[in-house]
Amino acid sequence: MKLPTLSLHHHHHLTTPFLHNAATVSLSRSTRVSNGSPFAVRMSLKEDGPSVAIVGVTGAVGQEFLSVLSDRDFPYRSLKLLASKRSAGKKVNYENRDYTVEELTESSFDDVDIALFSAGGSISKKFGPIAVDKGTIVVDNSSAFRMDDGIPLVIPEVNPEAMEGIKLKSGKGALIANPNCSTIICLMAATPLHRRAKVSRMVVSTYQAASGAGAAAMEELELQTREYAFNLFSHNAPVLSNGYNEEEMKLNNKSVKVTATCIRVPVMRAHAESVNLQFETPLDEDTAREILRNAPGVVVIDDRAANHFPTPLEVSNKDDVAVGRIRQDVSQDGNYGLDIFVCGDQIRKGAALNAVQIAELLL
Amino acid sequence: MKLPTLSLHHHHHLTTPFLHNAATVSLSRSTRVSNGSPFAVRMSLKEDGPSVAIVGVTGAVGQEFLSVLSDRDFPYRSLKLLASKRSAGKKVNYENRDYTVEELTESSFDDVDIALFSAGGSISKKFGPIAVDKGTIVVDNSSAFRMDDGIPLVIPEVNPEAMEGIKLKSGKGALIANPNCSTIICLMAATPLHRRAKVSRMVVSTYQAASGAGAAAMEELELQTREYAFNLFSHNAPVLSNGYNEEEMKLNNKSVKVTATCIRVPVMRAHAESVNLQFETPLDEDTAREILRNAPGVVVIDDRAANHFPTPLEVSNKDDVAVGRIRQDVSQDGNYGLDIFVCGDQIRKGAALNAVQIAELLL
Ligand SMILES: NC(=O)c1ccc[n+]([C@@H]2O[C@H](COP(=O)([O-])OP(=O)(O)OC[C@H]3O[C@@H](n4cnc5c(N)ncnc54)[C@H](OP(=O)(O)O)[C@@H]3O)[C@@H](O)[C@H]2O)c1
Ligand SMILES: NC(=O)c1ccc[n+]([C@@H]2O[C@H](COP(=O)([O-])OP(=O)(O)OC[C@H]3O[C@@H](n4cnc5c(N)ncnc54)[C@H](OP(=O)(O)O)[C@@H]3O)[C@@H](O)[C@H]2O)c1
Repeated sequence: MKLPTLSLHHHHHLTTPFLHNAATVSLSRSTRVSNGSPFAVRMSLKEDGPSVAIVGVTGAVGQEFLSVLSDRDFPYRSLKLLASKRSAGKKVNYENRDYTVEELTESSFDDVDIALFSAGGSISKKFGPIAVDKGTIVVDNSSAFRMDDGIPLVIPEVNPEAMEGIKLKSGKGALIANPNCSTIICLMAATPLHRRAKVSRMVVSTYQAASGAGAAAMEELELQTREYAFNLFSHNAPVLSNGYNEEEMKLNNKSVKVTATCIRVPVMRAHAESVNLQFETPLDEDTAREILRNAPGVVVIDDRAANHFPTPLEVSNKDDVAVGRIRQDVSQDGNYGLDIFVCGDQIRKGAALNAVQIAELLL
Repeated sequence: MKLPTLSLHHHHHLTTPFLHNAATVSLSRSTRVSNGSPFAVRMSLKEDGPSVAIVGVTGAVGQEFLSVLSDRDFPYRSLKLLASKRSAGKKVNYENRDYTVEELTESSFDDVDIALFSAGGSISKKFGPIAVDKGTIVVDNSSAFRMDDGIPLVIPEVNPEAMEGIKLKSGKGALIANPNCSTIICLMAATPLHRRAKVSRMVVSTYQAASGAGAAAMEELELQTREYAFNLFSHNAPVLSNGYNEEEMKLNNKSVKVTATCIRVPVMRAHAESVNLQFETPLDEDTAREILRNAPGVVVIDDRAANHFPTPLEVSNKDDVAVGRIRQDVSQDGNYGLDIFVCGDQIRKGAALNAVQIAELLL
């Protein structure tokens, strides 16, 4: 499996303006603007911006796309909202303009510069190449293209260089894939440490939110019905012949040995991951904490005295991935091991935000 | 830290009658008898049985003691129910007899053969030695004596030989400690594998139920208030200077290197643990599954096709520890690694049941 990050060339500092270094005191918040007020008109609608389409706009990730684009003042000349026939005709007021959701068809991508896809793998497989043929640059949230060798799999903080050849207004369409949400959240923390001390093996156990399984699962949790009634269970992805489920295999990596156990917990939003790291060269916990404090898109919450560490609730609707419980692994000699606990909003950094950051690299 | 199990002499088969081999099809259930019916009179009240006291009988574990003693027809000549002044005078109908909860005092242990303690560490520290002086054998559920070298720490399926010197009616009192609940649940699965292939290192991530933190936490979860509102958090035990919390350090072991991350999840009852094992000699997953199927007190739930694996809900109120997701660790070469997922009722096998099994070894 081809994943970005750990197997990539080291790329120490990103200078793109949208990648800030997170402060350790507060997580970066999305500043939402009330659309009702005339004083709140966003400046994102810009004549020289790209034309943008959102495929799957009515879904959990699709809705988050709208919110992230607005929060980040992503410039766009026009916006096309696409979903299935079921939702076609629905009215959406967005940044003080009225839009109508259109049915996704083969002609949806005429004059679309950037298409953000989040309508599931089969839609991506069918309509992704159609869009590319029209000259559209597709950023895809599904697993459809993640394993294709010609298609970059990008986390902007980790491997922006992977999409260097792809340019807006070149007349040439292209596909860029968003990694799996658990992978993004894990690698946001692991990559800065890997750059310093080379991770040789990772043992990951996840605590994944219901919202990762879509709107229906969120509703089920809200009602405390069936599996979600104060219970947890092995991830719903199919189990392969080697005993790992597909979600766990997505955490695999060419250059680093990874074993993962993915579990769904009765949490509404944001994934948590317990990550044990083995390094090739020594790395003490103070250096690790310092590296993570300086890592873009990462915030350190690690107050042992107050027992204050990352929780899903605290990172919900936040951009940054939070890391805490940073400690020397007592089961490994020397400074060759660390345990960390990571939380990230998988709809935001694990999906919509990461895709919009990719789109920003195109501007 | 001194823990039983992995560091102990191998003890392959237990022949004590109450340690059955669990069937793989169903977990052993507690068969409860309605106390109201005259036909349901239990036979546990026996003239030649020991006199038994329960310290902390009104608590979560204390209540479970009553239920386990009844389920297992534990013979007793007399029963003394002890708690704090607050609960003294409360009436309890148990196995068709009326009892009154008494206040725990220094004279509570006159003529008590076995005392089951679950009233917290400070009560154990104070009253445990007093009981021993009176000739009582104390089985303690708190952490008070777990690290004392002279006091056996026992899981009956793992190291019953540790309490060999302790005998009822010898006139000599003694202390026996119950290991921490997460430790018991983990070792029920890890020990049978360790006996075959010697575990050299374990990476454990827990998913711990609210009930592990007592009745108040259960109520909080029920109300979905504060921390428990669809959230999870690092275990509430104090964090030590090495960054591990006390709960995590309890999983440590003299002979095996262990690193643990302990997390509380919004689950009512029963703990889950994701356990990565490294072995000194090769062990393939089929052999491991077979070993676990034959392990006393363990049930294997490992249906990949149906995605059916252990869940807290399924093991709640059950005696057996359930193991599933048994698979070769892809991050380790050869057959030197396994990942497993374990669930167990921490009030039952993690506390009351284990203590009663210890008491049964005295009979
Ligand atoms: N949820 C997450 O945390 C997360 C994280 C990372 C990646 N992803 C990926 O993002 C994708 C969407 O996930 P989600 O959670 O947002 O799912 P969701 O809430 O179920 O939304 C699905 C979206 O796809 C649209 N759709 C379905 N069939 C369609 C069709 N035939 N033509 C056009 N649109 C169609 C739906 O539109 P209608 O309203 O018309 O049905 C809806 O907008 C999936 O590939 C998922 O794996 C999700
Ligand atoms: N819950 C678990 O899953 C679990 C698992 C393994 C081990 N343990 C251990 O078991 C112990 C009890 O846990 P729990 O969850 O059952 O707690 P709990 O529900 O809070 O019950 C505490 C019990 O201790 C009694 N008690 C308190 N102060 C006392 C005093 N001064 N004198 C006599 N009795 C007193 C209480 O009686 P009143 O009604 O009079 O207050 C009550 O019966 C703890 O050491 C805990 O670490 C618990």
